[in-house]
Amino acid sequence: MKLLKTLAPAAALIALPSLGLAQDEGPAPGVNASTDTVFIFNSLLFLIGGFLVMWMAAGFAMLEAGLVRSKNVAMQCMKNVALFSLAAIFYYLIGYNLMYPLGTWASEGIISGVWGPAVLEVVGVTAEGADDYGYASTGSDFFFQLMFCATTASIVSGTLAERIKLWPFLIFVIVLTSIIYPLQASWKWGGGFLDAAGFLDFAGSTVVHSVGGWAALTGAIILGPRIGKFKDGTVIPIPGSNLTLATLGTFILWLGWFGFNGASQLAMGTVGDVADVSRIFANTNTAAAGGAIAALIVSQVMFKKPDLTMVLNGALAGLVSITAEPLTPSLGAATIIGAIGGIIVVFAIPAIDKMKIDDVVGAIPVHLICGIWGTIAVVFTNGDASLGTQLYGIVVVGIFTVVTSAVVWFILKLVMGIRVSEEEEIAGLDMGELGMEAYPEFSKG
Amino acid sequence: MKLLKTLAPAAALIALPSLGLAQDEGPAPGVNASTDTVFIFNSLLFLIGGFLVMWMAAGFAMLEAGLVRSKNVAMQCMKNVALFSLAAIFYYLIGYNLMYPLGTWASEGIISGVWGPAVLEVVGVTAEGADDYGYASTGSDFFFQLMFCATTASIVSGTLAERIKLWPFLIFVIVLTSIIYPLQASWKWGGGFLDAAGFLDFAGSTVVHSVGGWAALTGAIILGPRIGKFKDGTVIPIPGSNLTLATLGTFILWLGWFGFNGASQLAMGTVGDVADVSRIFANTNTAAAGGAIAALIVSQVMFKKPDLTMVLNGALAGLVSITAEPLTPSLGAATIIGAIGGIIVVFAIPAIDKMKIDDVVGAIPVHLICGIWGTIAVVFTNGDASLGTQLYGIVVVGIFTVVTSAVVWFILKLVMGIRVSEEEEIAGLDMGELGMEAYPEFSKG
Amino acid sequence: MKLLKTLAPAAALIALPSLGLAQDEGPAPGVNASTDTVFIFNSLLFLIGGFLVMWMAAGFAMLEAGLVRSKNVAMQCMKNVALFSLAAIFYYLIGYNLMYPLGTWASEGIISGVWGPAVLEVVGVTAEGADDYGYASTGSDFFFQLMFCATTASIVSGTLAERIKLWPFLIFVIVLTSIIYPLQASWKWGGGFLDAAGFLDFAGSTVVHSVGGWAALTGAIILGPRIGKFKDGTVIPIPGSNLTLATLGTFILWLGWFGFNGASQLAMGTVGDVADVSRIFANTNTAAAGGAIAALIVSQVMFKKPDLTMVLNGALAGLVSITAEPLTPSLGAATIIGAIGGIIVVFAIPAIDKMKIDDVVGAIPVHLICGIWGTIAVVFTNGDASLGTQLYGIVVVGIFTVVTSAVVWFILKLVMGIRVSEEEEIAGLDMGELGMEAYPEFSKG
Repeated sequence: MKLLKTLAPAAALIALPSLGLAQDEGPAPGVNASTDTVFIFNSLLFLIGGFLVMWMAAGFAMLEAGLVRSKNVAMQCMKNVALFSLAAIFYYLIGYNLMYPLGTWASEGIISGVWGPAVLEVVGVTAEGADDYGYASTGSDFFFQLMFCATTASIVSGTLAERIKLWPFLIFVIVLTSIIYPLQASWKWGGGFLDAAGFLDFAGSTVVHSVGGWAALTGAIILGPRIGKFKDGTVIPIPGSNLTLATLGTFILWLGWFGFNGASQLAMGTVGDVADVSRIFANTNTAAAGGAIAALIVSQVMFKKPDLTMVLNGALAGLVSITAEPLTPSLGAATIIGAIGGIIVVFAIPAIDKMKIDDVVGAIPVHLICGIWGTIAVVFTNGDASLGTQLYGIVVVGIFTVVTSAVVWFILKLVMGIRVSEEEEIAGLDMGELGMEAYPEFSKG
Repeated sequence: MKLLKTLAPAAALIALPSLGLAQDEGPAPGVNASTDTVFIFNSLLFLIGGFLVMWMAAGFAMLEAGLVRSKNVAMQCMKNVALFSLAAIFYYLIGYNLMYPLGTWASEGIISGVWGPAVLEVVGVTAEGADDYGYASTGSDFFFQLMFCATTASIVSGTLAERIKLWPFLIFVIVLTSIIYPLQASWKWGGGFLDAAGFLDFAGSTVVHSVGGWAALTGAIILGPRIGKFKDGTVIPIPGSNLTLATLGTFILWLGWFGFNGASQLAMGTVGDVADVSRIFANTNTAAAGGAIAALIVSQVMFKKPDLTMVLNGALAGLVSITAEPLTPSLGAATIIGAIGGIIVVFAIPAIDKMKIDDVVGAIPVHLICGIWGTIAVVFTNGDASLGTQLYGIVVVGIFTVVTSAVVWFILKLVMGIRVSEEEEIAGLDMGELGMEAYPEFSKG
Repeated sequence: MKLLKTLAPAAALIALPSLGLAQDEGPAPGVNASTDTVFIFNSLLFLIGGFLVMWMAAGFAMLEAGLVRSKNVAMQCMKNVALFSLAAIFYYLIGYNLMYPLGTWASEGIISGVWGPAVLEVVGVTAEGADDYGYASTGSDFFFQLMFCATTASIVSGTLAERIKLWPFLIFVIVLTSIIYPLQASWKWGGGFLDAAGFLDFAGSTVVHSVGGWAALTGAIILGPRIGKFKDGTVIPIPGSNLTLATLGTFILWLGWFGFNGASQLAMGTVGDVADVSRIFANTNTAAAGGAIAALIVSQVMFKKPDLTMVLNGALAGLVSITAEPLTPSLGAATIIGAIGGIIVVFAIPAIDKMKIDDVVGAIPVHLICGIWGTIAVVFTNGDASLGTQLYGIVVVGIFTVVTSAVVWFILKLVMGIRVSEEEEIAGLDMGELGMEAYPEFSKG
């Protein structure tokens, strides 16, 4: 996303001289915003987008707390609060500068070599002193980018719920948010080799969602399924304990996604930029709607009864699917791209089950498979995209994430173990690891 | 709301020439925002307002999920996600252009004749190419207006909960969001005959809330009450299953309403406009507060025990009441208008019950009766309003909505039936229609 | 916060003349936003900040509803809706003008003598007519400031839960929001003697959080502990009934805090201001993360099992700790300031228990003790702060709040009693005072 940052100031440079001319003529086209104003608008876009994406952390927490059994709910809340906090700290300490090497925006290297904590502009910075006057404040950019890193980690926690130990999971989050995510993100958004190759991923179907999905998939395979999930070749459904929370989580994610995709335009200080942000909001919304309705219809047809969790995952699938290119599609195309995501999810969830991979909340179909679909779908509406390059990006990022994740998971397994004991898993992680219950007063049926 | 759009550019036209003069004199009054800046501010207002109103969909979902019995909770979540998604799709396909016929903003006809899906501005549109340079991006307007259409549909689902079948309800939503809502909305906000007649409805006490309320009332009468609600002439209270969710839903709606009313100013690119948006935020908040406290006091006096659901509905009543005119009242007047709404609700809820109309969540008192009250209340603070015209608008919209809704409900009843079977209703719609439970692990008392 | 308001226009005055010069030279540094644009940006900051802080009311409601027993949940929701509503009404009627005496911004008196309801600018105000052209709209300022007053009241309700009567609590809220809060706030933010003394409190670690905390502490001592909390010298843990709600509440507060601290910059119409707002967003986030992780680690080490409620309170502690100075710290310093807050909470919660003060949700450690810590911590990163003056402000505000709160609590105790009967407390306030249950269908374990 950040790579586009060179565009906005350029546009301002071209347009601004007309300001002087236009004023004698009244408000004709060409009466641009001033440079300060552009800086403020762009920074504001990042701040609004950032707090909306931060809110997605709550969405993941509620979605996952609703889809696990009540005996594991407190732990799922704990993991979500802790992973977001660790992402904040380690993206600051390591990730941000690894992803956007200081002063080397045009860098094309794989590892750009700047390690060190993020540093924001001084208090009350002037135009002359700003890191990137004509664009946006560093603090707003850091705040916004951090939230994408945290989202990647949020995706992992749902898949591995109900059996992974707290601390190894959190250590994985540290590696993911300080190294795995920022390094591969730099290849596209830091101006690295994937960007140079023409790989397109507007807001992160691949860079964020598939990375979370690959890390989750790798973890799920190494960790193994929950006790009782697969028995004598059949899949035993384990319903979530609180579908209102899952619904709330989905609505939160839907809301947050306007920031996720909309602010990935990275600028709103010109007519073209704010109109583009508007297109993205509208397309993001309709893709989610398409995903939800497609999942509703397909689950009605296939199972004879519509399935709420499928519809919720359908909406999320639509959102992930439109994320690689929320700008160029028409409203109709966006609806269809989202709807295909919704259909994919209804088929992929049982398919993943059949492979005996235990994905508690459906994050692999939603974030990985629809992340891939969305990245491919760019070619249908963006003339600059090539299918080969899109597949190249998907595969490169996939291999990198799977290999590095697997190494980390295996080391953690070896060193400290990643799975709770059988008794703890049966009793629930809440009593086993935390010694508390999420709903202590309500008797279990 | 959109009708006002002609005002903002006009103001800019008048004000801008002074920009050149003022600059030699320092920051005197008259140093206006540039035309681009106004465009960006207005678009941003729609985007912020739009995401806040989108969030209201979650508010309705939580409110309704909290006020139904646990056996119908998953279905209520399903309906809310699905109705919002269908509103998004059908307002795009039909409603938007029906409501705002392309290029014919000043049209006064009842049916303006442009059918067809919404089309946004091209990617990276220039000032010259923008549909409405000097005002705002089409995408931001579409996004914002869509949310009002979806809100109208959200109002219906609560009243009809716990007994209506999923699919007929969703078909009704399609008709409501593609035809009924946009057509009547065009009479006021599309510049139609109600607008020409001087009918005032700033953010939709009538156009949104009463329409949802009339459609709900019509449906409730045709559908009939829940089994066990009215027995031997007495009203049997059926308490909601989760009052924290109802409280959360109310807070979400309260928050979203700042976007609903505030962004209905439709512009914030001038000192006057942003000051007006500020007034609206403050008035909207205090009207909700007035409604909540009035309902608290009246329910304490009448029932000797204050009633939480009355207080929640009181806050919502205050919000609906101020929606027709959130700008002109003083803070004191806004508080009183909201408080009267809160009082109305405490009397109207049992009154509706006595008429043997079964409104599960109290949406008819809140959205219909307070929608009417709010529309009338405009005359107390806005000198341009005439009581006769306000009543005329209320009645015209009411008759239209009742007749069209009744036709649709009757056709649905005839063709596919609108009510679940008695066994399904007793067992709950969650197991009956969806085959799942919202809270499967918690035993029922 | 408001005191800083004189700075922004001053900056604009200095900077604007360069606008004329710069335009001939293209977008060089110095191409400032126009005066109107600055006004709009500042007002918009207050509106966005205001709705985010309003959302914190929902956060407190969910946090507290999750941390009380299910038999007191409906009452806790009631109190939170009602206190926010009363704050809105009484801050309007009395508080706002008491805090910011009309036209006497530079006043240094203790009581500035203007009593009367807030009055907003007229509809469609012009630059000439605006109360403070060059700064921001009065409506936006009122809306934002109101939310701080309401937050102060929200803090009190959690500590006193499960035993205080509804009406005396609400009367206390009226006094708190119309007099106690605004009066002491005027000493700093109204330009009073604490401000003149050089006391620094950016967004209210002392002015908001410690005041809520002192009022809660005073109330808790006068009210006494819940039945069964302290028995034969031991502390009996009373777990909260719904930890997902508590988690949701924490995330809501975390989100709202970006508005709380960020918009307390009070301006974003210049490069320096928006960059500062960005710093504040980033620092606020990392302080919360630091608090959560510190509480996680310390609770793991001390109790061998990490404690979810400690982690949630740790995040909130981090947020309170950074609130007195969210601007000057580096990201690293902010993380540490927050982390110390998180550590404090883990030690303070059992310490408060040992003093036989019954604080149901941990609001005293979080808001009072970390409010003090945050106010002291200003000296580490802000060269303008003096430890003596910070302590002076803490003590003055503390004594004033404790004395006035105690007087009000004692009068209420004398006149109407503040505590429910023993039977009501044992049965729960929901059935006792409201005659309803929050979760009527779920059987208690």
